[in-house]
Amino acid sequence: MKKIEIKNHKIISQIKLSNLPSRIDLETGDDEVKVELRKIRRKLGKLQDTLYAHGKYSILVCLQGMDTSGKDSLIREVFKDFNARGVEVMSFKVPTELELKHDYLWRHYLALPARGKFGVHNRTHYENVLVTRVHPNYILGEKLPNIHSIEDVNDAFWDKRFEQINNFEKHLAENGTVIFKFFMNLSKDEQKRRLLRRLDLKHKNWKFSAGDLKERKLWDKYMECYEDAINRTSKAHAPWFNIPADNKPVARLTVATILYNTLKAYEDIKEPELDAKTKANIEVYRQELNNE
Amino acid sequence: MKKIEIKNHKIISQIKLSNLPSRIDLETGDDEVKVELRKIRRKLGKLQDTLYAHGKYSILVCLQGMDTSGKDSLIREVFKDFNARGVEVMSFKVPTELELKHDYLWRHYLALPARGKFGVHNRTHYENVLVTRVHPNYILGEKLPNIHSIEDVNDAFWDKRFEQINNFEKHLAENGTVIFKFFMNLSKDEQKRRLLRRLDLKHKNWKFSAGDLKERKLWDKYMECYEDAINRTSKAHAPWFNIPADNKPVARLTVATILYNTLKAYEDIKEPELDAKTKANIEVYRQELNNE
Repeated sequence: MKKIEIKNHKIISQIKLSNLPSRIDLETGDDEVKVELRKIRRKLGKLQDTLYAHGKYSILVCLQGMDTSGKDSLIREVFKDFNARGVEVMSFKVPTELELKHDYLWRHYLALPARGKFGVHNRTHYENVLVTRVHPNYILGEKLPNIHSIEDVNDAFWDKRFEQINNFEKHLAENGTVIFKFFMNLSKDEQKRRLLRRLDLKHKNWKFSAGDLKERKLWDKYMECYEDAINRTSKAHAPWFNIPADNKPVARLTVATILYNTLKAYEDIKEPELDAKTKANIEVYRQELNNE
Repeated sequence: MKKIEIKNHKIISQIKLSNLPSRIDLETGDDEVKVELRKIRRKLGKLQDTLYAHGKYSILVCLQGMDTSGKDSLIREVFKDFNARGVEVMSFKVPTELELKHDYLWRHYLALPARGKFGVHNRTHYENVLVTRVHPNYILGEKLPNIHSIEDVNDAFWDKRFEQINNFEKHLAENGTVIFKFFMNLSKDEQKRRLLRRLDLKHKNWKFSAGDLKERKLWDKYMECYEDAINRTSKAHAPWFNIPADNKPVARLTVATILYNTLKAYEDIKEPELDAKTKANIEVYRQELNNE
């Protein structure tokens, strides 16, 4: 069987989104890709157990992508072999009234994973420089004292917001969070096919909303905002990865592989040593139990 | 009656703590100071109502000071005329296990006040550069992946931590939080008197802990850390104020006055206008009710 090679796809310099692939076809069938995913996710699940015992790192997995880019099913498939204790999935929707009464990072801060855990964020704090940038009127809903009209949502406003996001991630990284930011790179054609499928298949109908077509019309504006967000926030301690998303099984395998290979390289992640005194007395404890 | 003048005490340049007063005696009796406090806190309570209706600013009041510096009773007296809806008091004690499983700012972020509210933090995120700096072994309890022993808690570590705190406050200020940082400046002699009182008065006994005397022995080290923290984090958008704390009534009046005078100067804080359409129809609504 041909070895399946998964590229890292880490974004390390300024990118043009149109140059990044939305599809990678491997020289193997989907079945083999699925077998490979099963292997890697089992290893990832074990690594998570060790991470939990070690108890020092948090893993923040950020998933961003257009509608139908496969975020939900990716989460289902990649984290299937995790002990449920070790992973918290958060889907960020339209902010609630309580959330809007705090700064825009507040709800994301609350949801951060504890040490030893994975936090998977389905849509993330980046929505604050994506959907709100495409629809700057949403910013008015944040009730910021210095924003009186859309005219105030200017370049200087976005500069600040990017600086705030970069500082937020830097702080997390410096305090033990390993950050992965996955851009689910879907082509406009593939989105069309997937939206049609939602209309064609009765049991998929519920996933469709007329709003999806409205947002689709703003595709180019979204891509512009994604490109700028990625270029402004790709950091060694909080890298973006381009995940070709037109082929779902390959996208899932790619994400799982990046997570596994990156974390495997952290040689300090291991079960903690028993303290010296307890260790020296293992034989004593064994006898105590046996003599009961 | 003599007018009581309360100074602002804002710290605007690098300070030597030993040059800042721990006692201000006004040329009036304590009774007059209390009458004045009653006046100002009533005005502050009204201002809070308006702040709530306006709904754009959060007010973060940070109280830091040594044991017995009067933080608890100050909170009781200054916020007495607030609608309870408008103020949330948080006392930060030794971090819980859950809190230690997150970065050190997490619990402070969670507790941030919503727009329209005052959040009063009794001890604050500054404990992370005060008590932990006096006792660097506490940092080991945070389970940071890159901190293996006290030797790693070095100058570079504190530099980063101050940068993180400054970025945190800058983010809050840029997103609508008005920040006040009050250093309750107590003299070592006055602390001695107050600790003795706790021993002398039976109903105050419960407030005493032998640990207080241990920390008192580290007084100079604490002052060193306070001085450095204040000098590194005094910013126009997040100023420190020196509150002479040896005289409790004066300390309370000083804090109340600073809060009131600062916020009064925000001319944009006012009840929102009724939207034009509803406003135009006030007479219609009135008639509808009268005709019931």
